[in-house]
Amino acid sequence: MSKQLTGIAASSGIAIAKAFRAETPDLTVTKESITNPDEQIKTLEQALDQSMNELEAIREKTLKDLGEEHAEIFSAHLLVLKDPELVDPIKQKIQDDHVNASFALKEVTDQFVTMFESMDNEYMKERAADIRDVSKRVLAHVLGEPIASLAEVDEEVIIVADDLTPSDTAQLNKKYVQGFVTDIGGRTSHSAIMARSMEIPAVVGTKEVTSEVEAGTMMIIDGLSGEVVIDPSEDELKQYRQKQADFEEQKKEWAKLKNEPSKTKDGVQVELVANIGTPDDVEGVENNGSEGVGLYRTEFLYMGREDLPSEDEQFEAYKKVVEQMGERPVVIRTLDVGGDKELPYLNLPDEMNPFLGFRAIRLCLEKDDIFRTQLRALLRASVYGNLKIMFPMIATLDEFRQAKQMLEEEKNQLQAEQVNVGEEIEVGIMVEIPSTAVMAPQFAKEVDFFSIGTNDLIQYTMAADRMNEQVSYLYQPYNPAILRLVKMVIDASHAEGKWTGMCGEMAGDEVAVPLLLGLGLDEFSMSATSVLPARSQLSKLTKAEAVKTAEKALEMNSADEVEALVREQYL
Amino acid sequence: MSKQLTGIAASSGIAIAKAFRAETPDLTVTKESITNPDEQIKTLEQALDQSMNELEAIREKTLKDLGEEHAEIFSAHLLVLKDPELVDPIKQKIQDDHVNASFALKEVTDQFVTMFESMDNEYMKERAADIRDVSKRVLAHVLGEPIASLAEVDEEVIIVADDLTPSDTAQLNKKYVQGFVTDIGGRTSHSAIMARSMEIPAVVGTKEVTSEVEAGTMMIIDGLSGEVVIDPSEDELKQYRQKQADFEEQKKEWAKLKNEPSKTKDGVQVELVANIGTPDDVEGVENNGSEGVGLYRTEFLYMGREDLPSEDEQFEAYKKVVEQMGERPVVIRTLDVGGDKELPYLNLPDEMNPFLGFRAIRLCLEKDDIFRTQLRALLRASVYGNLKIMFPMIATLDEFRQAKQMLEEEKNQLQAEQVNVGEEIEVGIMVEIPSTAVMAPQFAKEVDFFSIGTNDLIQYTMAADRMNEQVSYLYQPYNPAILRLVKMVIDASHAEGKWTGMCGEMAGDEVAVPLLLGLGLDEFSMSATSVLPARSQLSKLTKAEAVKTAEKALEMNSADEVEALVREQYL
Repeated sequence: MSKQLTGIAASSGIAIAKAFRAETPDLTVTKESITNPDEQIKTLEQALDQSMNELEAIREKTLKDLGEEHAEIFSAHLLVLKDPELVDPIKQKIQDDHVNASFALKEVTDQFVTMFESMDNEYMKERAADIRDVSKRVLAHVLGEPIASLAEVDEEVIIVADDLTPSDTAQLNKKYVQGFVTDIGGRTSHSAIMARSMEIPAVVGTKEVTSEVEAGTMMIIDGLSGEVVIDPSEDELKQYRQKQADFEEQKKEWAKLKNEPSKTKDGVQVELVANIGTPDDVEGVENNGSEGVGLYRTEFLYMGREDLPSEDEQFEAYKKVVEQMGERPVVIRTLDVGGDKELPYLNLPDEMNPFLGFRAIRLCLEKDDIFRTQLRALLRASVYGNLKIMFPMIATLDEFRQAKQMLEEEKNQLQAEQVNVGEEIEVGIMVEIPSTAVMAPQFAKEVDFFSIGTNDLIQYTMAADRMNEQVSYLYQPYNPAILRLVKMVIDASHAEGKWTGMCGEMAGDEVAVPLLLGLGLDEFSMSATSVLPARSQLSKLTKAEAVKTAEKALEMNSADEVEALVREQYL
Repeated sequence: MSKQLTGIAASSGIAIAKAFRAETPDLTVTKESITNPDEQIKTLEQALDQSMNELEAIREKTLKDLGEEHAEIFSAHLLVLKDPELVDPIKQKIQDDHVNASFALKEVTDQFVTMFESMDNEYMKERAADIRDVSKRVLAHVLGEPIASLAEVDEEVIIVADDLTPSDTAQLNKKYVQGFVTDIGGRTSHSAIMARSMEIPAVVGTKEVTSEVEAGTMMIIDGLSGEVVIDPSEDELKQYRQKQADFEEQKKEWAKLKNEPSKTKDGVQVELVANIGTPDDVEGVENNGSEGVGLYRTEFLYMGREDLPSEDEQFEAYKKVVEQMGERPVVIRTLDVGGDKELPYLNLPDEMNPFLGFRAIRLCLEKDDIFRTQLRALLRASVYGNLKIMFPMIATLDEFRQAKQMLEEEKNQLQAEQVNVGEEIEVGIMVEIPSTAVMAPQFAKEVDFFSIGTNDLIQYTMAADRMNEQVSYLYQPYNPAILRLVKMVIDASHAEGKWTGMCGEMAGDEVAVPLLLGLGLDEFSMSATSVLPARSQLSKLTKAEAVKTAEKALEMNSADEVEALVREQYL
C-alpha cells in the first residue's frame, strides 16, 4: 500500500518518478600522528584547489542558468576557502601537532562552526552554515571521497535528501531531475527559492522522507499542496497524472496571456511588472510577459566582492537593463544594504536590532560618496530608456528631501560636465515604514510615485521579525491594519495625481490580488514567474466587485477573516 | 578667570561647591612567578569575599534608598562574582602557570571583557561592563588598594570623575554631595537615571572636566542646561545663586500643587499618574501628588533572581500597592520580558532582532503557566483596591481575546475555589505596535482602556531602534505620524466611551503635553517627579487653544516644525 507524507510546498508542479537518494559519503575522520607535515599541508592545499575549482564551476553555471542573485552564495563560499583566518590555523595545527590534514581540517572548522553557532545571531549562523557546507567539500577531497555531483544524474528521478545545499541544487539537471523532496528546510530556504527559479517541483520539510523511501521506489511529489506519495497505487498515479496535466494546461493558458494587457473582466487596466536583481534577469522578465520592471534591486552589484563597484560598472549594468526594456518602465531602487544584507568591505558595526538599524537610505545619506556615485550612474543611464529612481527605507520627508537634493546636485554637476541625463526622471520612494504610510498625504505632494514594500511594512507594522519563527504568526499580509495603511498610501497618491505600486511578495499573492485591485493599486511588481498567473487571475475579476470586497475587508477584525472572505468569494 | 564647559544635563538643579576628585587607585599588575599557588588562591578568595560583602551592602542601601529597580544591577554584579565560569579559570591559571593572583585575575577578566565586547551585541557589551566594574573592585582588594568609598565624603562637594559606576553613585551621601560631573556618560546611563531618582544635580559627558579641574577648586554645575563653570567669578556665582533660588522657588510652587486637581486654565480635568517598578516606589508617588499609578511594571518582580516568583509573592506585591493607593487607580501591566529584558532562568533563545521578537504577551500566551500564575495573583489582589489589568505588546485582536479568555478562566477557577476576586476589573492594552493603533476602532469595542506606550510605538513606527546611536535621530516623538496614530487611538476610544492614557516618556515631556491635551488624552502617566511640573504646566494651558495647536501639528511635515510651533506658542 502506498504511504503518504506531507511537507511544505516549496516549488509548484507535480513530479512522478523513481526516488534517487542523494547520499553523503562517509567522512569519518581519525587522528593520526604523522612525520611529514609538509606532505599533509600539500594534500590540504590540493583539496582546497579542487574545491575552489568545483565551486567556481558551480558559480559559473548558476550565474548562467539562474543569474547573479543565486550565484552570490558561491562567491561567499569561495571567500571562505580563501580566508587565511580559517586556512592558516589548519596548517598550523598540522605543523605543530603533527596530525593528519583531515583531522586538523575537521578540528579547526568544527571550532569555527561551533563558535559562530554559539553566537546566536542569525548572520553568524549563516556563516556557520557556509563553513559547514564548504568544509565538507574540502574534507571529501582530502579523504579522496569526492561528493557525488547531482549533475551526473542521467535518468528521470526525484531527488530524496535530508537537505539540499545550494551547491547541490545549483547542479541539478532539469532534463532529468523531475523534482526534489527533503526532510528539512522551509519555503524561504535558499534551495527552495532556487527550485522556484528553475521551475523544478519541490516539497521540503517532510521530516521523514529519507527514512521512508528507498532508492528506486516510485513516488509522487506535489509541489502545489506539499503532498508526497511513496509507492503510489494505480488510482493515485492516475489522479496525480491528471493533476499534472491540468497544471501543464494551466501553464499553457497562462503562456497565451504573454502579450496581452493586464485587464480585469470589466476592462480596468493595471500594470504587472517584475522584480529583478541583475541584468541577467531581464530574459525572465521578457519570457513571462512582464510590462516592465517594478523593482531592480541594485545591491547585488555591491555583493560578493571586495570593494565598491565603480560608477562606470554601475552605469553599464543600469544601461543594459533600461536599453533592453526600451519604452517599458524600469524602477531602480538605490542601494539597500545594512541590516541583514552586509557588505563586509563597508565595515558596518553589528547592531542589536539590524532590522531597525542603519541601513538603506539612512546609510546612503551618511556615506554620501557611495550614494552620489550610484546617482551619477543612474542619471547617465537614464537617457537609454524609461528609468525611474526609487529610494528605500524613507521614514521622514526630510530624508526624501535630502536624497532628492543630492540627486539634483549630481544632475547639475553632470550637465555642467556636458554629460547627457534624462530630463523627466520620475523619483519615488518605497513605503515600507509605518510613519511614511501614515504621512502619505504629505509625501504625495513631493514624490512622483510610491511603491509599497510589504515585506518590511508588515514586519514593522506588526513589530515582528518575519525571520523569527517564534513570532512568524504575526507576519500577516491580510491583517486589516496592513490593508488600511495600503489604502492610505493609494488614496494619498491619487489625490495628487500620482501612482502607487507594490513590490513586496504580497503583490503576486492570489489572496491579495483581489484586495489590492479593490484598493486601487496601479502597479503590481512580483517575481517574473508570477506575472502570467496574476494576469490570468485579474482577467477573471471585476474591479467593481473587488472594491466591495476590499471595503468589507477593511472593516474586519483579523487577517483570518479577510482571507476567508477572499477565498470564499474568489478562490 | 573662570572656565566654562558644556556637557549633557543629566539631573536637574544647580550645585555650587568645591570639587572633589574621585580618583581610581593604581591597579597596575605585574606578572610574578610564585611557589605557593594555594596561598594566592586564598588571597583571591578573600578578595572575592570582601567584594561580595561590599556589593551586598551597596545593594541593601540602594534597595532601601532607591528601590528594587536600581538595586537590580548589583544583584547582577553579585552573580558575576559567584560565576564559576569566571572564577574557576582564574584559580586554574594560578595553579597551572604558577603566577600571582592579581595577574591571573587581570588576564582572565580581560579575556572575558574582550570576548564579550567583540561580540558587538549590546547585551553582551553590558555584561562586559559588569565584569569590568566588578573585577576592578576585586583586583583592588587583591592588591590591598581598596577603592575609596564615596560614602565617606563629609563636606559639601561636587564629585568630579571620569565616569561614575552605578556602585559609585549608589554610595553618594545626599547630605554632602551637591552634585556630580563626569567626562563620559549620557542622559540614559545608569548613573544619570539614579541621580534623577536621588534628586542630585548632574552633568555628564563633558569630555574634559577631569583634566580641567583640580581638587578643592570652586565650581558650579547646572543640571538644567548642562553648563559647568570652574573657578566662577563673583558675578557668575551671583547669577547661578539666583538661578538656584529660582529653581528652588519653582519646586516650592510645584509642591503647592500636590493636593490640587490636574486642571487646565479653562477648567478641563485630566489625570496625572505615575509609572512605578516596585511597591517601594509608592512613597514617591505619594510625595509627588500623583493621582494614581498609570503603569506598574511587574517585571522587576521576576528579575535579579534564579526562578519565577510564586503566586503568593506576586499577590503580596500587588496587594501592597493597591492597598496603599486606596481608591486611586493602579494599572498593572502583565509581564513584559524578552527582547532586551532577559530572564536567564527562562532560557529564551537569542534573537537577531529582539525588539521585533518573542516578548511580552507573545511569550505569555505561549508560556501560559507563567502568565496564569500572574493573572491569579492579580485577581486575588484586585479586591484590595482599584486594580486595572493591562496587556503589553498586543498586535492583534486575537492576542487580546486569548489573554482575556485566560483571565476569565482563572477568575472562574478562583471563584470555584471560593476565593474573592474583584467583580469590575477594567482590562486594557498597551498600544505600542502600529497595527494596534491603526486597528484601534476594532479594539475599542472590546477593551476597557488603551495606554499608549510611546517608547516602543515610536521605534516601530519609525523603524528605528532608539538604543542605536546611528539611527537615534529617527526617534521623533513629535513626528506628525506619531501624533496621527495617537489621535486615531484617542478618537477610537472616545467613540466607544472608553479612555486613553499614555505611559511612555512622552507623557511628561513639556513639548508633548500641550499636543496631547489638544488631542484629547485622558490620562498622562510619567515618572513621579514629573507629575507636579506637568500639573503646573497644565494649569497655564487652555484646552481650547491646545486643540487648535494639535490640529495644526497634525498637518505639518516634520517633527522639527511641530516642536518649533509648540515652543513658540507655549515655552
